[in-house]
Amino acid sequence: MPLYALTLEYDGTPFVGWQRQGSGLSVQQVLEEAAAALNGGAVPLAIAAGRTDAGVHAEGQVAQLAIERTLAPERLREALNFHTKPHPLVVTCAAPAPEGWNARFSAVRRGYRYRILNRRARPALEAGRVWHVPVPLDAGAMHAAAQGLLGRHDFSAYRAAACQAKSPVRTLERLDVMRQGDEVVILAEARSFLHHQIRNLAGTLLEVGLGKRGTEWPRRVLESRDRAQAGQTAPPEGLTFLFVRYAEDIGWI
Amino acid sequence: MPLYALTLEYDGTPFVGWQRQGSGLSVQQVLEEAAAALNGGAVPLAIAAGRTDAGVHAEGQVAQLAIERTLAPERLREALNFHTKPHPLVVTCAAPAPEGWNARFSAVRRGYRYRILNRRARPALEAGRVWHVPVPLDAGAMHAAAQGLLGRHDFSAYRAAACQAKSPVRTLERLDVMRQGDEVVILAEARSFLHHQIRNLAGTLLEVGLGKRGTEWPRRVLESRDRAQAGQTAPPEGLTFLFVRYAEDIGWI
Repeated sequence: MPLYALTLEYDGTPFVGWQRQGSGLSVQQVLEEAAAALNGGAVPLAIAAGRTDAGVHAEGQVAQLAIERTLAPERLREALNFHTKPHPLVVTCAAPAPEGWNARFSAVRRGYRYRILNRRARPALEAGRVWHVPVPLDAGAMHAAAQGLLGRHDFSAYRAAACQAKSPVRTLERLDVMRQGDEVVILAEARSFLHHQIRNLAGTLLEVGLGKRGTEWPRRVLESRDRAQAGQTAPPEGLTFLFVRYAEDIGWI
Repeated sequence: MPLYALTLEYDGTPFVGWQRQGSGLSVQQVLEEAAAALNGGAVPLAIAAGRTDAGVHAEGQVAQLAIERTLAPERLREALNFHTKPHPLVVTCAAPAPEGWNARFSAVRRGYRYRILNRRARPALEAGRVWHVPVPLDAGAMHAAAQGLLGRHDFSAYRAAACQAKSPVRTLERLDVMRQGDEVVILAEARSFLHHQIRNLAGTLLEVGLGKRGTEWPRRVLESRDRAQAGQTAPPEGLTFLFVRYAEDIGWI
């Protein structure tokens, strides 16, 4: 069966997350059921580059999908977008998958953005898209602290208890914190992340931004390898999966 | 009674527009009823710099409000934000109004943004915030056409039939069109605008972007002073009221 690569944009608010669960509608289910209409009714399996949690958004999630029919990528995209209605999930690009490519295991870089709305007033326009922190944050101190976490480390201290990865070692390639108007934005890049890693990093950097902890503290938390040392898990709605990069050249349409 | 200046952010989606109407909830009603709680129960009158239509958003609308109590601006802001819950309307800044100032008539510059999502896939994350135009637009041609509309003109051709302004003459100070990734963004600035002026300009520039009309056409429409010559009224959800500028220095908090 021909395998396709898809880039996906979705608003995570109404979903239980990427993965199918009995408790509600998942991104995976909406995509797979849309694809069934192009697959003689049989529901195919979709595999995502990253299994986002409930409430987490995506601008550039990547998924793979095998269906029986050989379709031009633009026709596949249009047909899937017709069948994902009215859910806030769309296929922005599609392509035939390169030989041997896998959406999850072939990824060489994943990028995420975490947005904090840092002002007194709660969000009106960006409700559900940002973490509202009404107390002023020192974004410069958060950035300085973040730089101490770059590189290859055992990230056990920033890992969810439920994380299924075999190893807690990851290589953090980028962790930039910047103020953009009323927002403090965190950009994180790595080949792969542990479960809740970015949200735990955001919650820990917050303590530095509030002045409760010094800029060296997140590094000490890292070295402790103890989840109990780190800050809170920042809420999911501030997180957006921005992009996935592959070594293969995918001819996105 | 002390008069206050307020900057407002709101998601226009659930509202019938700024102005009170029998047909549903308005921004004005939510703000005035929130203020009543600080005014001994009496509902005060709020006057806005611009009366946005149903579905139009604001990042920096300005309103004036007179209430009986003299309050520190930060306390007024916090109290109003408590009472506007759960509606997507917040006061981002507040200040005592300068002597003789009026939110509407003292404005010297108003700025709006119109967003067009210009890609095949419908919006998932920005649904309700953009006009979805799936056919490729030439933003450069739209910008060139827009420059022919700058300055002081009779904008009757771009005016809603229901417009209540005494004169159709306005001075358009800025009308920039630019591509930003998948979006074509229009930025418009003037001392004041006619009813539907920006949405009619957007709908007319669209014809140029689609290649159906040349870059000189919007100017010829202007000179005709005939609304029937112009393009469609672009939908409200793409429009956001960005800012209001005053000659007076308002000590926003």
